[in-house]
Amino acid sequence: MDSILHKLKNGSCNTLGFNGTSSSGSGGCSSNSSSGGGCSHNGIENVHHLHEDVYNNGSPPKRCRLRRRMDSGKKNRPPFPWFGMDIGGTLVKLVYFEPKDITAEEEQEEVESLKSIRRYLTSNVAYSDTGIRDVHLELKNLTMCGRKGNLHFIRFPTQDMLGFIQMGRDKNFSSLHTTLCATGGGAYKFEEDFRTIANLELQKLDELDCLIQGLLYVDSVGFNGHPECYFFENPSDPESENCVKRTCCLDNPFPMLLVNIGSGVSILAVYSKDNYKRVTGTSLGGGTFLGLCCLLTGCETFEEALEMAAKGDSSKRGQTVASSFGHMMSKEKRDSISKEDLARATLVTITNNIGSIARMCAVNEKIERVVFVGNFLRINTVSTKLLAYAMDFWSKGQLKALFLEHEGYFGAVGAFLELLRITDDL
Amino acid sequence: MDSILHKLKNGSCNTLGFNGTSSSGSGGCSSNSSSGGGCSHNGIENVHHLHEDVYNNGSPPKRCRLRRRMDSGKKNRPPFPWFGMDIGGTLVKLVYFEPKDITAEEEQEEVESLKSIRRYLTSNVAYSDTGIRDVHLELKNLTMCGRKGNLHFIRFPTQDMLGFIQMGRDKNFSSLHTTLCATGGGAYKFEEDFRTIANLELQKLDELDCLIQGLLYVDSVGFNGHPECYFFENPSDPESENCVKRTCCLDNPFPMLLVNIGSGVSILAVYSKDNYKRVTGTSLGGGTFLGLCCLLTGCETFEEALEMAAKGDSSKRGQTVASSFGHMMSKEKRDSISKEDLARATLVTITNNIGSIARMCAVNEKIERVVFVGNFLRINTVSTKLLAYAMDFWSKGQLKALFLEHEGYFGAVGAFLELLRITDDL
Repeated sequence: MDSILHKLKNGSCNTLGFNGTSSSGSGGCSSNSSSGGGCSHNGIENVHHLHEDVYNNGSPPKRCRLRRRMDSGKKNRPPFPWFGMDIGGTLVKLVYFEPKDITAEEEQEEVESLKSIRRYLTSNVAYSDTGIRDVHLELKNLTMCGRKGNLHFIRFPTQDMLGFIQMGRDKNFSSLHTTLCATGGGAYKFEEDFRTIANLELQKLDELDCLIQGLLYVDSVGFNGHPECYFFENPSDPESENCVKRTCCLDNPFPMLLVNIGSGVSILAVYSKDNYKRVTGTSLGGGTFLGLCCLLTGCETFEEALEMAAKGDSSKRGQTVASSFGHMMSKEKRDSISKEDLARATLVTITNNIGSIARMCAVNEKIERVVFVGNFLRINTVSTKLLAYAMDFWSKGQLKALFLEHEGYFGAVGAFLELLRITDDL
Repeated sequence: MDSILHKLKNGSCNTLGFNGTSSSGSGGCSSNSSSGGGCSHNGIENVHHLHEDVYNNGSPPKRCRLRRRMDSGKKNRPPFPWFGMDIGGTLVKLVYFEPKDITAEEEQEEVESLKSIRRYLTSNVAYSDTGIRDVHLELKNLTMCGRKGNLHFIRFPTQDMLGFIQMGRDKNFSSLHTTLCATGGGAYKFEEDFRTIANLELQKLDELDCLIQGLLYVDSVGFNGHPECYFFENPSDPESENCVKRTCCLDNPFPMLLVNIGSGVSILAVYSKDNYKRVTGTSLGGGTFLGLCCLLTGCETFEEALEMAAKGDSSKRGQTVASSFGHMMSKEKRDSISKEDLARATLVTITNNIGSIARMCAVNEKIERVVFVGNFLRINTVSTKLLAYAMDFWSKGQLKALFLEHEGYFGAVGAFLELLRITDDL
């Protein structure tokens, strides 16, 4: 395995589309990699060209990859560090694979910047002011591409993306020649910034592909010996203590309706690992909840908004407001409502709208299993229980709402898996 | 025709379910009419009993009706005044038929309370503080049940319903023994108030039946020689002057997707006059728009809210807010947004959510014609154009958005028609 790292130190190209103007080293085929050909930074083109290369020996990228494969003398895997990134409308989700099987020799050969990244990420739980490692979600003792290690889950606000890219520049990330696999709308939005500021070329990946592959992978490895999936027992009674969370297995998960609630909402009908369609979506998701809640209550974070909502009135009076925000025309009535009630009304309104659309899709697609994911559900018991209730009640028990512990990270996991897959394909 | 009025003056029963504790007169079968039997106040039961009566001569209600029919000596029609009422979550919609063919003799025999109602309604365009007659919607020279007259369209806030009921009591409305046909959720909510305060028994009618029958009727008679229906030419360019309103005929209207946007939203797939299903709905409709807009901007009326929204920013910056209310976490950003932008964001968000749901339904039901009605669309060009745009754009021209001039009144018209139909059936 040292040969990979050795290669790295010598600055040779990596598998896919890395910008050759890198400052360290000059070996390999990196010099023309960003200008089309086999090293295009367009994901689809890349796949296309890779397939071509199999039949069409001798292109420069092909020769480059062949040389690297011979050097490593083993199954291909990408150079460390291994990341997967999902750049959403509100949050960037980052998964990082920390190898735990590093030999002394390997450690010795590890370049400083790589070591620094590993230590920085794994020895902290918060980064800068806003980055957070969700320690409780860490997946331990995974074996991936022959390496053993832990998968870390990190998030930070998308508005801090430029700071992240600048850090990548300052830490000379481009010298590591890792492929930076990224999905989400931000992979397009920030592509140019990655290129010009940090000399990094993104491998842009389809958001929905990543979501599904990431979800199926995490579900298959489980959550450190426990199931990844859960549902609510007695969903029809969401306020009572009978409504309890229960883990379950997502064995034979198809077909499922997959409802991804991030800033916006996407709803997919998934028939198999590779067969799915986007049924619909709505822009009224977590972004709307947070934006509206901030406007209505003056709160400034998702956590604050949810805390207020949890304290809001869920009684009849609260429900009247919650059901539609109706009857707020008189100043007197507006003034009689607490910020907590407004926060809850916002949460309930957004959640019910999503639930109602999801239910309609489930009925239309004749799918009974509705899996809700996305960071809107993070620390959001009000919404998870409400969705469980809505699915159960309005379908008279026909539909079942399922949830997953790694909520908003599946896109990033999918991007990470793609990094391994792309390399493995070569 | 004087015989009907004569009958009325003598206080005999009318056709359906009127409370017999009326203070004027004691003839006919009214005394037990509110306690079940043929005069039950439940619409379904009534129909059932009516059918029974045809084969089962001699029940008291039947005898009552037969006597009236013989008295009138002509085709049955209900006693004046003729009303249809739709009691929604925000607005009460009232249609009133003003007979224009009253003979001198008839006028002489007309009871004072009836005359007073007719004069009050037709000589004013505003009632109390909040009632409004939409004069521009008046349908002229209709012939209904052999009578010629004009149909008037009146609305007032549902929150003033008790005042309306009290007026009914003060004007001794119950002495007129008209059937009060009402639809909408409020027909249930206010039933008891009508009974106890004004001694009036509501004939409660199905909201969706009324909506469809009312719509088909108004479309069939047309709008005083003009078509009732319109669409937007060049919907893909809603901001330009090329996007213009054009009238059209709703000939052969089936199948249509009917999207009724009142306080909440109902979506129906209508396959024929009598064959339809409710596909879905959402509580995020006009009530949510108005409630949220009042909360966010301090406005107090729908008109004010729409005026603000029309002035709001529809440029890129405005659209960023509009698309989801996202990114409102910092006080600085919140403070940089005008009330007009917030109003527009609210309007656009609610409208797009409805458009998106409607489009999904249209695709699922394989219906290309999407008819939008309901009072949310009143004086609301922003939303109508946006819906026209959304249908056209997202379906690549496959779907067509249609609108109707009498927007929110079809339920009330349907209730009114039912008054005539029920009587005619006897």
